[in-house]
Amino acid sequence: MGMTMTQKILAAHAGLPTVKAGQLIEVSLDLVLGNDITTPVAIKAFEEMGISEVFNRDKIAIVPDHFTPNKDIKSAEQCQMIRKFSKAKGIVNYFEVGEMGIEHGLIPEKGLVVPGDVAIGADSHTCTYGALGAFSTGVGSTDMAAGMATGKAWFKVPTAIKFNLHGALKGWTSGKDVILYIIGLIGVDGALYKSMEFCGEGIASLTMDDRFAMTNMAIEAGAKNGIFPVDQQTIAYVENYAKATRPYTVFEADDDAVYEQIIDIHLDDITSVVAFPHLPENTRNIEAVGDVAIDQVVIGSCTNGRIQDLREAAAIFKGRKVAKGVRAIVFPVTQRVYLEALREGLIETFILANVVVSTPTCGPCLGGHMGILAKGERALATTNRNFVGRMGHPESEVYLASPAVAAATAVKGKITNPVELVKDNETRLYETVGGRI
Amino acid sequence: MGMTMTQKILAAHAGLPTVKAGQLIEVSLDLVLGNDITTPVAIKAFEEMGISEVFNRDKIAIVPDHFTPNKDIKSAEQCQMIRKFSKAKGIVNYFEVGEMGIEHGLIPEKGLVVPGDVAIGADSHTCTYGALGAFSTGVGSTDMAAGMATGKAWFKVPTAIKFNLHGALKGWTSGKDVILYIIGLIGVDGALYKSMEFCGEGIASLTMDDRFAMTNMAIEAGAKNGIFPVDQQTIAYVENYAKATRPYTVFEADDDAVYEQIIDIHLDDITSVVAFPHLPENTRNIEAVGDVAIDQVVIGSCTNGRIQDLREAAAIFKGRKVAKGVRAIVFPVTQRVYLEALREGLIETFILANVVVSTPTCGPCLGGHMGILAKGERALATTNRNFVGRMGHPESEVYLASPAVAAATAVKGKITNPVELVKDNETRLYETVGGRI
Repeated sequence: MGMTMTQKILAAHAGLPTVKAGQLIEVSLDLVLGNDITTPVAIKAFEEMGISEVFNRDKIAIVPDHFTPNKDIKSAEQCQMIRKFSKAKGIVNYFEVGEMGIEHGLIPEKGLVVPGDVAIGADSHTCTYGALGAFSTGVGSTDMAAGMATGKAWFKVPTAIKFNLHGALKGWTSGKDVILYIIGLIGVDGALYKSMEFCGEGIASLTMDDRFAMTNMAIEAGAKNGIFPVDQQTIAYVENYAKATRPYTVFEADDDAVYEQIIDIHLDDITSVVAFPHLPENTRNIEAVGDVAIDQVVIGSCTNGRIQDLREAAAIFKGRKVAKGVRAIVFPVTQRVYLEALREGLIETFILANVVVSTPTCGPCLGGHMGILAKGERALATTNRNFVGRMGHPESEVYLASPAVAAATAVKGKITNPVELVKDNETRLYETVGGRI
Repeated sequence: MGMTMTQKILAAHAGLPTVKAGQLIEVSLDLVLGNDITTPVAIKAFEEMGISEVFNRDKIAIVPDHFTPNKDIKSAEQCQMIRKFSKAKGIVNYFEVGEMGIEHGLIPEKGLVVPGDVAIGADSHTCTYGALGAFSTGVGSTDMAAGMATGKAWFKVPTAIKFNLHGALKGWTSGKDVILYIIGLIGVDGALYKSMEFCGEGIASLTMDDRFAMTNMAIEAGAKNGIFPVDQQTIAYVENYAKATRPYTVFEADDDAVYEQIIDIHLDDITSVVAFPHLPENTRNIEAVGDVAIDQVVIGSCTNGRIQDLREAAAIFKGRKVAKGVRAIVFPVTQRVYLEALREGLIETFILANVVVSTPTCGPCLGGHMGILAKGERALATTNRNFVGRMGHPESEVYLASPAVAAATAVKGKITNPVELVKDNETRLYETVGGRI
């Protein structure tokens, strides 16, 4: 009986020839990740273990991104704690504000996860790195502590749903629309503890940034992980863009791999999608949204703060202004993406459009800071969750959509189909494989 | 008996031929200003007065800059309240995040205060506009409410200290060093309820940005206001840069004006100055600072977030990096200055140096957000106050200095004289009168 792509990665990291769904295995970890919220808890657990050294100083990454630059004294103290710990343990990949970005943008671009890896992170959106053909998943702070101590983690081998992608994206649709479409289809627990394995000839039309947005939100369908096969684009990203120095291994699903379900997705049929409050599964096609006035637009986050996202938003903002009375905030995912956007003129476009350009931070995505909602306010965001009170007051609302929809919405002050403002999406022409700075 | 420049402005606005120090007068206001912290209190007071309309929809400015983009639900609610009030009362100069900046940067560049004006603001650093040859001062929220209702305010006419400036600034010294030097000389109550009137041939060497930094900190010597005579540079700023549409009046002190004190300041003698915790008067020349390690550097604020400040910082950061373990954060004072800095390549220099570039906000200056200090941490900042706990934990410390010192300190990780890194300051060559974009 064949294995899925995920199962093959896990088997290799468990030192086993084969594994099967449901089996409990202990695997070696290529990366253990934490942020400024989860790492302090992990440090306490680590210290209670009575272990003095981390398993590998190169294989731990600590990224203070949630409440940074320090929101308040409490967050300052949490950052102080992880900074001291990182220094004391000689952790190589501690990233200070200014040299970093949001963890799930930073880790891939630094080459800290490569195809075939197993990575865990004390953050639910750690599943993002599946776009690189790696197994990565979010864990609790105690698992992070155990990972830092031993370099290993226990997993129950997941079953999988195979998503066969056909055709190609068109117009303003992007990876974000595909994953919202899928979550709308299967629901927020539609892939509970399963792998979401994306396959098919449709993948070729998806940029790396499309793929990152899709695997990032695998957890929003309850999945253990989301994963893409490794193709030319993946390799160009890893070798030319991330300039990864570690060797990597390309795993492929067996031809006779067993899937719990196979779902065909026709990319050509997908239009812009908006998830209504208060669940990512409450999706509607943009044409069916109706009249929804918006107070704040958020473009960025670990889901959609990459260069393609900023290009698409800028293409809409170009020569336009944010509607009077609306706040629009852009959060590039990393300092590197900020620099790319700056050099391409995108930041200038944003400023001229009266958009707030923030330093990379998780900011309002999780109701942290830098754009919190008052009672009764509505935001449209390119982020990943629209649970009750996610971005502020319990009586505020969050709508999820793509960067193009977000920019069009900021300009019009109500949820808007980007084709109403700019007919053709020419931003994808920018993207030459591996050709980014 | 002649009048000081301040007294002549006040007399004209009181409709009186002359006024004298100590006299209580009622003056007409050209601008009433509030921010997101003080305006909600003023609105409540305004509503208690039972008045339905503001005195003049064009002469009120409301700028949400302190805890914006909204730090938390409370700040979101405060902004919501002032946004609704501004809309209901038809206040023309309400500025949303994205179209604005820090109030004391924004008001001058929008031409909302011009030479000869009387302006009040519910923020202590409203004294900034004295650089334009206007009388401006900070008031409480109740005075702001009365100002919004009646367009008038009561003042006790202040006496004055005359600062005769001789010579010219040299090297890396700037207006910030001059004002710190003066506060070191006279103390934090050295000009209590008095005008600080800057005069003399030395003024010609001070750019508008030098002057804004100096009048901004008049309140740190306890002054009612700080004021500069109007010269070619002022007029170029008002006409060419701010493109003010209102007529303005140039007031000059009488030759026989009475001053409480006349102090000669020799600009050539001033070196870079650092104010040690916990008062702006605790100044030392940079040469006498000793070894002071720093955790965080803040460049920006209503004191020093203008283009000259960013140029000077960038000249130091160019080709260098922030020291490992140090956070450096730049806050341009307005979106317009952000755009200027972007077009001059300064933002790129910052990003390449691992500096955090924030959207304009008061941020950490008053311990608000975006760079709060933990216990035991030390910041060097270009801001205006270093009181106990000003930037975070009561056991943290703030040192005040110029942007050049701040940038050098970020690079070295300890308080550093900028000449150690870059011998000559060539950034002042950029500044051609009125030649800014």
